[in-house]
Amino acid sequence: MTVLERLAALRALMKENGLAAYVVPGNDPHASEYMASHWFEMQWISGFHGETGTMVITHDQALLWTDSRYYLQAGIELKDSTIELMRESDIDCPKLIDWLSENANGVVGVNPEMFSVNDFADWKEKVELKSIDLIKPLWTEGRPVIPQDKLYPYSADYAGESVESKLARIREIVNRKSSNGQWALIVSALDEIAWLLNIRGNDVEYNPVVISYVVLEADQCTLFTDLNKVDTVAQNYLDFNNIAVQPYEEVFAYIGGLKGAVFYDGARVNEALFEAIPADCKKINAKSPILIDKAKKNAVELEGERIAMRQDAVALTRFFKWLEEEAFADGKTQTEWSLMEKLHEFREMGENFVEESFGTIAGYLGNGAIVHYTATKDNCAEVKPEGMLLLDSGGQYLDGTTDLTRTVWLGGRIPQQAKLDYTYVLKGHIALATARFPRGTRGNQLDALAKQYMWAAGITYGHGTGHGVGHFLGCHEGPQNVRTDNNPTVLEVGHVVSDEPGIYRTGKWGIRTENLIAVIPAKQTKAATTEDEWLAFETLTLCFYDTALIEMSLMTEDEIDWLNAYHVRVYKEVSPLLTDAEKSYLAYKCAAIEL
Amino acid sequence: MTVLERLAALRALMKENGLAAYVVPGNDPHASEYMASHWFEMQWISGFHGETGTMVITHDQALLWTDSRYYLQAGIELKDSTIELMRESDIDCPKLIDWLSENANGVVGVNPEMFSVNDFADWKEKVELKSIDLIKPLWTEGRPVIPQDKLYPYSADYAGESVESKLARIREIVNRKSSNGQWALIVSALDEIAWLLNIRGNDVEYNPVVISYVVLEADQCTLFTDLNKVDTVAQNYLDFNNIAVQPYEEVFAYIGGLKGAVFYDGARVNEALFEAIPADCKKINAKSPILIDKAKKNAVELEGERIAMRQDAVALTRFFKWLEEEAFADGKTQTEWSLMEKLHEFREMGENFVEESFGTIAGYLGNGAIVHYTATKDNCAEVKPEGMLLLDSGGQYLDGTTDLTRTVWLGGRIPQQAKLDYTYVLKGHIALATARFPRGTRGNQLDALAKQYMWAAGITYGHGTGHGVGHFLGCHEGPQNVRTDNNPTVLEVGHVVSDEPGIYRTGKWGIRTENLIAVIPAKQTKAATTEDEWLAFETLTLCFYDTALIEMSLMTEDEIDWLNAYHVRVYKEVSPLLTDAEKSYLAYKCAAIEL
Repeated sequence: MTVLERLAALRALMKENGLAAYVVPGNDPHASEYMASHWFEMQWISGFHGETGTMVITHDQALLWTDSRYYLQAGIELKDSTIELMRESDIDCPKLIDWLSENANGVVGVNPEMFSVNDFADWKEKVELKSIDLIKPLWTEGRPVIPQDKLYPYSADYAGESVESKLARIREIVNRKSSNGQWALIVSALDEIAWLLNIRGNDVEYNPVVISYVVLEADQCTLFTDLNKVDTVAQNYLDFNNIAVQPYEEVFAYIGGLKGAVFYDGARVNEALFEAIPADCKKINAKSPILIDKAKKNAVELEGERIAMRQDAVALTRFFKWLEEEAFADGKTQTEWSLMEKLHEFREMGENFVEESFGTIAGYLGNGAIVHYTATKDNCAEVKPEGMLLLDSGGQYLDGTTDLTRTVWLGGRIPQQAKLDYTYVLKGHIALATARFPRGTRGNQLDALAKQYMWAAGITYGHGTGHGVGHFLGCHEGPQNVRTDNNPTVLEVGHVVSDEPGIYRTGKWGIRTENLIAVIPAKQTKAATTEDEWLAFETLTLCFYDTALIEMSLMTEDEIDWLNAYHVRVYKEVSPLLTDAEKSYLAYKCAAIEL
Repeated sequence: MTVLERLAALRALMKENGLAAYVVPGNDPHASEYMASHWFEMQWISGFHGETGTMVITHDQALLWTDSRYYLQAGIELKDSTIELMRESDIDCPKLIDWLSENANGVVGVNPEMFSVNDFADWKEKVELKSIDLIKPLWTEGRPVIPQDKLYPYSADYAGESVESKLARIREIVNRKSSNGQWALIVSALDEIAWLLNIRGNDVEYNPVVISYVVLEADQCTLFTDLNKVDTVAQNYLDFNNIAVQPYEEVFAYIGGLKGAVFYDGARVNEALFEAIPADCKKINAKSPILIDKAKKNAVELEGERIAMRQDAVALTRFFKWLEEEAFADGKTQTEWSLMEKLHEFREMGENFVEESFGTIAGYLGNGAIVHYTATKDNCAEVKPEGMLLLDSGGQYLDGTTDLTRTVWLGGRIPQQAKLDYTYVLKGHIALATARFPRGTRGNQLDALAKQYMWAAGITYGHGTGHGVGHFLGCHEGPQNVRTDNNPTVLEVGHVVSDEPGIYRTGKWGIRTENLIAVIPAKQTKAATTEDEWLAFETLTLCFYDTALIEMSLMTEDEIDWLNAYHVRVYKEVSPLLTDAEKSYLAYKCAAIEL
């Protein structure tokens, strides 16, 4: 079937069902950032293969909304498809829902599995919606199945807490909010399920999760997943923990039989699940207690993060040593892609390494200034031993999840602006890492600490300063972050966030410096005037900075002291895992700097 | 009538009307911060004369909620009243509305004029409310009348914009939101009315406002106020500007006759006005466009602020000179009250001075650490030529409104902690004043800039860092501020806010340093990487800092340069208004400091 044939078939179904428009968002039923290809419905109907986009089909129009990363790709892939590209960043590009409410002129069909309850409710205020899946009857050939990889128990030695303990705690939280003890909590986010049940899987790239739903009740816990995923070991583990297993698609019928209060997080639970709740149940839309709890890492999880960081540091040290000493030796040539592959090789040697935690970003020269740049084997720049390289990568280890960015100068004379840019970024990065703040402080209050020096120079960046990071789970997790947005979440002990300010100079270079930092308690000082409890950050990531790029005249003594102490720590923690030659290299990179 | 008799009479009325409880908040019908005594209903029913509090009366209980500033006073004044004091800051003190919803057991009566539409709606979700005024029939003797002072036109030479222009602009804004052009906008906040109509009055202490309502429509504008306030000059002015005048209490009947869409700001418009809107009108709760517009000062208003600042600076210079040279000479003694009176004398000499913009706070030693400290003639500390004095004061000038705080050392050896505290505050104050930031930045993003240095020392403060300030209007105004709260308002060119970090050491000293700063456009730098427009602050206040309190080792070169440049500017702008002796004093206080 061609895209034109697919659109025609869809329109015929729309007509049969009295729909004026049909919307296909690039979502899955679990509000996932990374999706299994089974749910590439938007890609299937449009022929566009970018990661983000939403298709709108009316009887005489077809439009695809996507963001600036994909304009080029979409332009090529949508050619001859009759699909109009809607460039979201254009000032005169209408918001999708506004376009719909002006142009739909009738009922708009959507697959309710692909919409969160909250989004569905917002849209419903502006257009007449009908819950209906029109892709399933059409996409019968060549549709990838839902991954059937095995799930596996994730030891409490890594998780730091037994399933029993987690279930008891979450039940207690929900119980307190429920009046008569008869309740159910619907869990659909894959990282929440993996955390709650101490299970992991291989269903989604970069994310060791299991495609499934959970319905938690006071006296039972039911996991809905493809039964092929559950081998004897897994079955024994689930049995032992009193977790019942039912087929994935049975979740709707099961929810249809619930009584009492039904709790769901409307931002993450999909509309189809919500519609399955019986009318006489009390429906309570509340932030997921699992999401909140999962974000506060326990001592074992944090210790695991530290172990993973050392493995990661070894890989990065080896990579940078190779890059300096061997990559260009004997006339060898390199590309962004070859660097990515080499880094993967080194990471793969690490103990307990499972996979990357996201697609490595290796941005050479101007490519570093493209914030979501992805080099591919066939489309990447040649890298020479000169100029700036931005390298953002991370690993999934059984012990934890890593994510770090280093920007290094590969050779040649360093332009003064490059040193200034690097130093503004570094000063902001240090300001956030060294912040002390009273309990109750939100990430958005700290955001400007990382930006103040570049702001003074008239420079800023559009991405967040810090995202939450999971523990051997998603590289991005909520609810905490460090961004400009008015996120009401306060930073709490055990939260892990990234610290990654950046400066992007189009066509020249991108500079980003990223560590993961964990929120820890800080002691009250003697000078304290209030009873406030204090928090600070522990830097988890262990990788040297390129000190050649630092403009020393901008650095304060405190900043230099911090940097030198960090490098001492990096050497101390990482060198025992290195060969003598690697140790020498690391010692050289970690040498103290002076004003 | 004694308080006991008042309570008994109220309970009899409650019984007649089938009420289980009655609530008397310390509000007026205009959501004012400062109120005319006509509306001291809470004070009348309770016998408590603090500024803030809410009374709840049931048939067998009477309770007063108030905050920590008033516990002592309330304890004394409520003695023998049967009224229980509810200390809001106590951890186990229930929130008033929660107490009501648990204990009212029936209908709760409230005067809807004393509740904003939004508060009323919030309460209605938790208790059964009845709109009824039971104080009016009881408080017949000795109730102060609504002030009858004349209103006067406020020249566009000061306001910078004619009434005609303001009305046209606000009408255009509302018109755009209204579908068919038939609309009304209810305005009840007194500062909004004064700004919109370019009128001022003397009805409320510290606030040159006119007690009134306005209903603005596409083709007319009606001012509801006591007709005694409108003399011939005022009448001619209002006639000329096509502003109709009706008696204050007629507003309800007038609103009852409206048609079409009725706009109101539910945070500021009272419930009684809302209830007067006809059922078939479309009611639209939207942030007041006047509030938003008023906050963005025009060039004439800002120039007026600068003029007022010079007058204020002269008064402060004279005051501090007197304090150093004369206050304690020849065995004279001083108190916090005598200093307040002296400062008033100096301010009163200023051109275009009208009144103070709030009650001066003169906090000597430990009194400076009490954030809302108010010295009275009969209850104030003796001030000696030693130790720390915090002085927070401001003036209403026809040209604009001022508000500044200086903390000075009066003599004796300075403790090292005092210097550290002063310097942390000063560094934060400078960091905010010198911030550059992209358009779209909110005040809460900048808050931590003012706190970062004291945070590093484990110190913080509980009040806001900056409040909005009106132009010859309220010393506190919205919607902009610099606080930790998630205020969604972005800072815009023309916004004026205070910059007032502080450190409070119980029993020892309070240190606060406050200037007013205005948001101004800043140029893009050559180093800019984006098209963002940039903003910065202009410091408006012109008064030297006590440099003797600075711990120089904590100061950066940039901070010292900023301080020295500020002192040069203060001398340059203020000295032309001083006598030679005063000039010498100011030159001495503005002398450059060096590392």
